[in-house]
Amino acid sequence: MFRPQIKVLDCTIRDGGLANDSHFTFETVRAVYRACCEARIDYVELGYRNSKTMFSPDEFGPWRFCDEADLRKVTEGVENRGTKIAIMQDAHKASAEDLLPKSESVVDTVRVATYIKDIDKAISLENAAHDKGYETTINIMSISVEMDWELDPALEQIEKETHAVACYIVDSFGALYSEQVDYFVEKFRRLLPSKETGVHMHNNQQLAFANTVEGIIKGANFLDGTLYGLGRAAGNCPLELLMGFLKNPKFDIRPILDCVSATIRPLQKDIEWGYTIPYMITGILNQHPRAAMAVLKSAERDHYRTFYDKMLELVE
Amino acid sequence: MFRPQIKVLDCTIRDGGLANDSHFTFETVRAVYRACCEARIDYVELGYRNSKTMFSPDEFGPWRFCDEADLRKVTEGVENRGTKIAIMQDAHKASAEDLLPKSESVVDTVRVATYIKDIDKAISLENAAHDKGYETTINIMSISVEMDWELDPALEQIEKETHAVACYIVDSFGALYSEQVDYFVEKFRRLLPSKETGVHMHNNQQLAFANTVEGIIKGANFLDGTLYGLGRAAGNCPLELLMGFLKNPKFDIRPILDCVSATIRPLQKDIEWGYTIPYMITGILNQHPRAAMAVLKSAERDHYRTFYDKMLELVE
Repeated sequence: MFRPQIKVLDCTIRDGGLANDSHFTFETVRAVYRACCEARIDYVELGYRNSKTMFSPDEFGPWRFCDEADLRKVTEGVENRGTKIAIMQDAHKASAEDLLPKSESVVDTVRVATYIKDIDKAISLENAAHDKGYETTINIMSISVEMDWELDPALEQIEKETHAVACYIVDSFGALYSEQVDYFVEKFRRLLPSKETGVHMHNNQQLAFANTVEGIIKGANFLDGTLYGLGRAAGNCPLELLMGFLKNPKFDIRPILDCVSATIRPLQKDIEWGYTIPYMITGILNQHPRAAMAVLKSAERDHYRTFYDKMLELVE
Repeated sequence: MFRPQIKVLDCTIRDGGLANDSHFTFETVRAVYRACCEARIDYVELGYRNSKTMFSPDEFGPWRFCDEADLRKVTEGVENRGTKIAIMQDAHKASAEDLLPKSESVVDTVRVATYIKDIDKAISLENAAHDKGYETTINIMSISVEMDWELDPALEQIEKETHAVACYIVDSFGALYSEQVDYFVEKFRRLLPSKETGVHMHNNQQLAFANTVEGIIKGANFLDGTLYGLGRAAGNCPLELLMGFLKNPKFDIRPILDCVSATIRPLQKDIEWGYTIPYMITGILNQHPRAAMAVLKSAERDHYRTFYDKMLELVE
């Protein structure tokens, strides 16, 4: 299913940073960057550039801020044959002042993540990033709980008021089935005719890869994945599966396999991600995974029935 | 997506038995049976009834044979409000003589698993089981490597020469994408108008659940799952996810959650199943998982690139 318009983005370090407060070592980030360059992935996202007034550098690691010096440290000296470097800004937790002009930065692309309630902040950040010379995208988080009567006008605003090259459907809760993916991709393509549609899926119901493929079939061209699915909670669409499906002749899966083996799998001793019953339960009930993340850190981690009944009380 | 025609079958013990030579304890099998009864799953498959001349009882556990006395031991005394008991016979490894008349057995349904090359053996076994009073199905294994010019006439034969209530698409290699599921479901429904279509999916590419849902959307009504995906290699469609999707009001997911917690998760210390890179590689390359199972038992288990290159040599 190779289409030249398709762009694959690896967000291992950025989304995985939500599972370890962005405390990856420089060696880990450099290894992921190198693997993506060697595999000829289109984009690699190395973290957030969020505000140090919102996140304490005492608590969060360097990839919550992506200081220019840190980005240079992990990227310099690695051969790059066209892999763009992306960072993310949260609409409600980042500042336009934290971006240098593009000419002084190794960053190519700024992705602005937002809830619909913060859409004006997101547009303002996107406009600032664009004016400083960056390629931009807007990523609509928690799409499975946004109301159409708020989402639709926000999309129309993005179409009119931004230079974003793509707008992403972000299934933060891992709650979508293929039919809902169809629904959202169709809506994004209709309301955002000048933008590409992107998909960023979570794996609570083991549907992250399948929903990404469904997005492709319906016309989404910007696709997020992570190495071995590393990411918050149940994790993301595994990049290696996406590469296997896409069969873009420029890709080489071998550096990704090496990196999973040498760098990503060893992280499992410190970070827990992937399918488990509590994440499945929040996914099925269309809830944020935070309650599942909390129960998995408690003595009740295997009391699935109790957790299920508690979550049901929240939604009924 | 509740349709009254949909029948869900749990094959945890049968398919899981391919990962441990059917050596489950009686307590484990009884716990799975009880959970399926309490959850009101339509069918529970408790193992194979294969021939003791083909499999040595010294090597294989009781659930490779499902002796009537063993089945009674795990089912008697458990309240059953309509969950049918199934067993499987391999067309090339089972004998019609091993079936008692239905009136002397706790078994309701005999599923005959076959490759296309053994279709005449399968039909003969199915006919015998039907004549003895059982409900029957035929399950076409390794569907992703069968040629249409052999598959199509075999399906026509099943339609004409058997009383099977359903014929299953079995993705033994975990190789199918949604578009191929569409292709096979359409074909089965066209060539087998008097049978229901079934789907049995493997999880090498994290698509077992997604492909089962795709089957449902296209009209498949017999659906296989296993608790927490337990099964050979990458495992199967997780039953708990299927229940969450189907929303059949008679189902209760709580006994399944309890059984996963108390019975299935503890098995992970002895049985390895679920998504890993070697299983992904055989899935992507449409190969039997046996090479991946072997490498995972060797010192080279994390040498993904080497395994990938070796497998490529086999298919190129």
